[in-house]
Amino acid sequence: MSFASGRHFLQIPGPTNVPDQVLRAMSAPTIDHRGPQFAAMVPPLLEALKPVFGTTGDVVLYPSSGTGAWEAALVNTLSPGDRVLCFETGHFATLWQAMARDLGLEVDFVPGDWRHPVDPAEVSARLTPETKAVLVVHNETSTGVTSDIAAVRRAMGDHPALLMVDTVSSLGSIDYRHDEWGVDVTVSCSQKGLMLPPGLGLTAVSAKALAASGGSRRSYWAWQPIIEANKRGAFPYTPPTNLLYGLREALHMLHSEGLPEVYARHARHAAATRAAVQGWGLELLCLDPSAYSNTLTAILVPGADHVREVILDRFDMSLGAGLGKVAGEVFRIGHLGHFNDLSLAGTLSGVQMGLQIAGVPVKDGVSAALSLLAEA
Amino acid sequence: MSFASGRHFLQIPGPTNVPDQVLRAMSAPTIDHRGPQFAAMVPPLLEALKPVFGTTGDVVLYPSSGTGAWEAALVNTLSPGDRVLCFETGHFATLWQAMARDLGLEVDFVPGDWRHPVDPAEVSARLTPETKAVLVVHNETSTGVTSDIAAVRRAMGDHPALLMVDTVSSLGSIDYRHDEWGVDVTVSCSQKGLMLPPGLGLTAVSAKALAASGGSRRSYWAWQPIIEANKRGAFPYTPPTNLLYGLREALHMLHSEGLPEVYARHARHAAATRAAVQGWGLELLCLDPSAYSNTLTAILVPGADHVREVILDRFDMSLGAGLGKVAGEVFRIGHLGHFNDLSLAGTLSGVQMGLQIAGVPVKDGVSAALSLLAEA
Amino acid sequence: MSFASGRHFLQIPGPTNVPDQVLRAMSAPTIDHRGPQFAAMVPPLLEALKPVFGTTGDVVLYPSSGTGAWEAALVNTLSPGDRVLCFETGHFATLWQAMARDLGLEVDFVPGDWRHPVDPAEVSARLTPETKAVLVVHNETSTGVTSDIAAVRRAMGDHPALLMVDTVSSLGSIDYRHDEWGVDVTVSCSQKGLMLPPGLGLTAVSAKALAASGGSRRSYWAWQPIIEANKRGAFPYTPPTNLLYGLREALHMLHSEGLPEVYARHARHAAATRAAVQGWGLELLCLDPSAYSNTLTAILVPGADHVREVILDRFDMSLGAGLGKVAGEVFRIGHLGHFNDLSLAGTLSGVQMGLQIAGVPVKDGVSAALSLLAEA
Amino acid sequence: MSFASGRHFLQIPGPTNVPDQVLRAMSAPTIDHRGPQFAAMVPPLLEALKPVFGTTGDVVLYPSSGTGAWEAALVNTLSPGDRVLCFETGHFATLWQAMARDLGLEVDFVPGDWRHPVDPAEVSARLTPETKAVLVVHNETSTGVTSDIAAVRRAMGDHPALLMVDTVSSLGSIDYRHDEWGVDVTVSCSQKGLMLPPGLGLTAVSAKALAASGGSRRSYWAWQPIIEANKRGAFPYTPPTNLLYGLREALHMLHSEGLPEVYARHARHAAATRAAVQGWGLELLCLDPSAYSNTLTAILVPGADHVREVILDRFDMSLGAGLGKVAGEVFRIGHLGHFNDLSLAGTLSGVQMGLQIAGVPVKDGVSAALSLLAEA
Repeated sequence: MSFASGRHFLQIPGPTNVPDQVLRAMSAPTIDHRGPQFAAMVPPLLEALKPVFGTTGDVVLYPSSGTGAWEAALVNTLSPGDRVLCFETGHFATLWQAMARDLGLEVDFVPGDWRHPVDPAEVSARLTPETKAVLVVHNETSTGVTSDIAAVRRAMGDHPALLMVDTVSSLGSIDYRHDEWGVDVTVSCSQKGLMLPPGLGLTAVSAKALAASGGSRRSYWAWQPIIEANKRGAFPYTPPTNLLYGLREALHMLHSEGLPEVYARHARHAAATRAAVQGWGLELLCLDPSAYSNTLTAILVPGADHVREVILDRFDMSLGAGLGKVAGEVFRIGHLGHFNDLSLAGTLSGVQMGLQIAGVPVKDGVSAALSLLAEA
Repeated sequence: MSFASGRHFLQIPGPTNVPDQVLRAMSAPTIDHRGPQFAAMVPPLLEALKPVFGTTGDVVLYPSSGTGAWEAALVNTLSPGDRVLCFETGHFATLWQAMARDLGLEVDFVPGDWRHPVDPAEVSARLTPETKAVLVVHNETSTGVTSDIAAVRRAMGDHPALLMVDTVSSLGSIDYRHDEWGVDVTVSCSQKGLMLPPGLGLTAVSAKALAASGGSRRSYWAWQPIIEANKRGAFPYTPPTNLLYGLREALHMLHSEGLPEVYARHARHAAATRAAVQGWGLELLCLDPSAYSNTLTAILVPGADHVREVILDRFDMSLGAGLGKVAGEVFRIGHLGHFNDLSLAGTLSGVQMGLQIAGVPVKDGVSAALSLLAEA
Repeated sequence: MSFASGRHFLQIPGPTNVPDQVLRAMSAPTIDHRGPQFAAMVPPLLEALKPVFGTTGDVVLYPSSGTGAWEAALVNTLSPGDRVLCFETGHFATLWQAMARDLGLEVDFVPGDWRHPVDPAEVSARLTPETKAVLVVHNETSTGVTSDIAAVRRAMGDHPALLMVDTVSSLGSIDYRHDEWGVDVTVSCSQKGLMLPPGLGLTAVSAKALAASGGSRRSYWAWQPIIEANKRGAFPYTPPTNLLYGLREALHMLHSEGLPEVYARHARHAAATRAAVQGWGLELLCLDPSAYSNTLTAILVPGADHVREVILDRFDMSLGAGLGKVAGEVFRIGHLGHFNDLSLAGTLSGVQMGLQIAGVPVKDGVSAALSLLAEA
Repeated sequence: MSFASGRHFLQIPGPTNVPDQVLRAMSAPTIDHRGPQFAAMVPPLLEALKPVFGTTGDVVLYPSSGTGAWEAALVNTLSPGDRVLCFETGHFATLWQAMARDLGLEVDFVPGDWRHPVDPAEVSARLTPETKAVLVVHNETSTGVTSDIAAVRRAMGDHPALLMVDTVSSLGSIDYRHDEWGVDVTVSCSQKGLMLPPGLGLTAVSAKALAASGGSRRSYWAWQPIIEANKRGAFPYTPPTNLLYGLREALHMLHSEGLPEVYARHARHAAATRAAVQGWGLELLCLDPSAYSNTLTAILVPGADHVREVILDRFDMSLGAGLGKVAGEVFRIGHLGHFNDLSLAGTLSGVQMGLQIAGVPVKDGVSAALSLLAEA
């Protein structure tokens, strides 16, 4: 597409469409991170962030991608040689356990078909006395499958292993309860439900995780100095000031809408998307209806990459590709973040037209989605 | 709607959705309007504007609304007591002739039903030897009816009256040819097809209009000093620098897409909208298919204002109200400016759902629109 | 200067340096000017504007330059053939009376040397029974001379003529009291003390002025329909929405600093500038110390335009040229709007270095300015 | 200062004043980092970055602070237990060697007085057969002392140790030649000479460093996957897209001015600052004139923190505090990045006035600075 009129539809499952007001907030001048204005900004910002994690404990921010926050989770709590239990729910679960190996951990990687959530029964079955941590992806960005974290935690019983959860594509979009569910480390990033550009890694840390203090070498990722500095509104390194401006605005937006309303909105949009998929007569990657993701939908279709190219070229919409072992077999629709009914209607319309143009014989699915949206 | 996630759908027939890049261009620092940097900006800006009017002659910009450019057209060319011929095609034609009366002109106002374009036969029939100017609205923003300017001009034959045309909601969206059609004064503004915020009035002026120099008192609106100053990159008053930054960017966008492509896009979106209306089983205000507007569609529906309120409240979309004598009887969908297929799909989806929620018994119209968009 | 690092110093007496936060406010998306969000914005905006004029009466905004507001003042209150009394205090007073003539008024233009304010004794002396209005420029942008409006009003005694005052380069920077001083029409614009880009004309109107309702032809500039529409948060034409966003932010800034503090700041900066001029051994254009302007300083120097060119080229600072009959003989330093001590220090440093580089034999004046600023 | 009119003077030695155009570039919508538009942006961006490092080899970017790039340098090339040679030139050299210890390296830390650069003779004297790397800070942000990297390299002779250099506060401001000087790893960040907000770590890597591939555990910081992905315009993690937009604009600005011109500007501003310090009769922290920094100046003064507070309060200017063992004894003026003569004049004026107000008996130093600036 040589020139595209109108606004691009960024319907990958992140980065999501950054709200104008967040971009404007981020374009304020950078200030002295050691001055009083900055120091006054930090504590309320962290307080506003905690309810999104469902915690009253510590949250830690880094200038990093989400993968940086993954690394932080591991090197702050574990020692090389420690065993961790991981579940192959999809591409990102696979990458996280590969990182764990790179960092010297021993990984028990429970195989999976990328179409089901973590099975709590498997969790109890696979735990060993040597297991130091269980790593679970809450919402698999590559598959659109959401695992039940509370059930995973229950399945761990009173095993002393830490529970670490990746909420990269769920935080701020799907109800999440770090404290209530007994999670030790929750990892996330800025560019999905938090509606920011990429560049910020976020972590909620339980007291137990903080006390674990594994033997891995660490400096940049060390939680303790950050938590200490944050108490006086500072950071042990130069913080990403303009992203923090954006975070402040994004949190203000989430709290203005109301977190329950935000979660309900995502649930409604996901249901409408699935109604469209059903109308099209296509198959969801996720095989477990109780695990359908509220933030993205992965759809099996032959020639999925061609469909995406047609849609990008004809309708200026970006969709997510199949990743890893489902590459070329699925495409993914992101319906999270700063989003509304009419943008979803435009998104689904574009997918439907693109499928038809690409020669996939689909019937009307948009009408079903609209019916559902109109009812709500 | 207490809080709205996602981007507002501004589907009134102007102001239109201002592109992000135009807003960013406008947020550059204001510069010295008497300095070399400003002087270098003006001539290429005016040159880039001329093809949009279809002229190689003079164009004049004001810090004003479009009504200011209306006034400029009249006071630069006519004298109090002069006769002008106007046609009641809708609300804005009615306002323009009312302005002409306020400015001391004698108006022959040909009545109309707001559902048809100007009839060229009426033009020739109504011209008198005293007629000094014919005033026509190219695209009636209140009705979605487009008049055939070339035919109007032909109908004037060799009558010496000036032809003045309001292109407020057509310029930059519908093919327009100031020179080729023999128009003397073309009036427009920034906030429609030019994709800018309101605040800029624009006029193309023929040599004949410039020579007319009527006896009306004028200062702010006087063309000659502006045209003279523009030649050296200046203005006789402090120009609206930041809107000019925006205009430069908007013109760059229009020319990047290509004016023929821009016009074709608008035609396609209008056709898709009418396909939806037909699907809904609703009636267009415009009764002449050859006069359907490419930039907006006015639809007759009982309780039109309630429908708009429902849509604003439930779907965060602004639609145009019925104005003047069709108040409460129609609503208007703007489909012009910075716009694309998926935004149109979202728009039509929102209208359909809103109609249903408001209790208007409509069938599916979106599918028909999508079929048309997918074919194109 | 092919490429300039750092921020341009825009030290002309307007447009002034627009604050970042105002530019950001203006880059919010344009909204429906007939919708509830817009309607809710207008009344508090007008209320916040009134104290800047020193009025509790009506204020009227236009998409226009300040010259548009000049025209509005005249055509709303006077009839062609009416006599008005004007004073040649400088370039803009000369332009305003020229506009009055263009609009058909009879002008008594009291000559002046551009170096003194309006003499109240002349006001009483020149008033005739036919005088319908007295037009005075509060702060002459071309000369840096401020006239005493209260004294002018007193000199008019109980003469029924309207008093109209141009506050283009004083409003929001120099204490001004429309009501207390008995002014009938106060004219201003956006791009000076109000810290906005150009594009907005502003007027405060007394009940007497409103009742005057002269016989001049008018439509765009007519106050009454605007005042009526404003009561319900609307405008009779499409308003310049994004400039109104900026105005809201700018007024918030002025009131946050406090109007008395804003006026004191301007007085202090003007005094420091004059201290520098004295240090340089140069001559002020203004000969009356009681009339020194707090917003700009005009300085007599041979080769003034060359000095300005050197300063623009070497130091990326724009200064005001001599206008009209002092063209080439003076340059003007604007020290108004969004400005502070260190920017003033940089400004005066640039002027001093530029004078020296241009070969004007000046001694150090910056030190004197800094002494004064440090004391304050 | 409850409310500050005018622009804040951010004269800490970083973050520096981010140019408006960089902030605007960064406020463009985030795009799909796996799409063609993103892929097309990356290679030219990296190419434009290389000359700033003085390299034709690999450069690697991270979403991180500069400390992240420090860590990357160490964990990519060294193994726990490796010996590194460090020099106590100031606070940041001290922090970097502390990080090296945290990461399991053995550090030979050559003590210093924070007032001199690295002594090349010490380099050769302290190298041992076990030394695996020499770590040097090019320009100590805490002291304003610049070390001679070429001389350090020469002093290493043909010792096989890697040379790693921190250019956090010199890159893009002081001439630097990674290839020519034989540096192996050059570490930097976004928020100083590159004129961006913080959030981006940058590294130039020699072929030798790349081949070293030490035994430290690493994942996030691993160079090889990044370099591989960059070749096809991608990153192995979600990159900080909006900071990359800003980097593109900032590099465009640096190359438009010309790197030699940028370096000369910084040298001139540093000389002018020292002229002011001499005028004030104060003492520089740096005792070696050949090592004066071109980007910041640290000044010894009793009550330095009080001076800074006065200046922040009265003149809305942020200066750098003394850090580490010179805390409270010095303050630092940053004169780097997007900066010009008049902003420097304002800065020095503010320092002078602040010193006087704080009761430090200083004479005029600004005049000397202005003389130097006017000559240039």
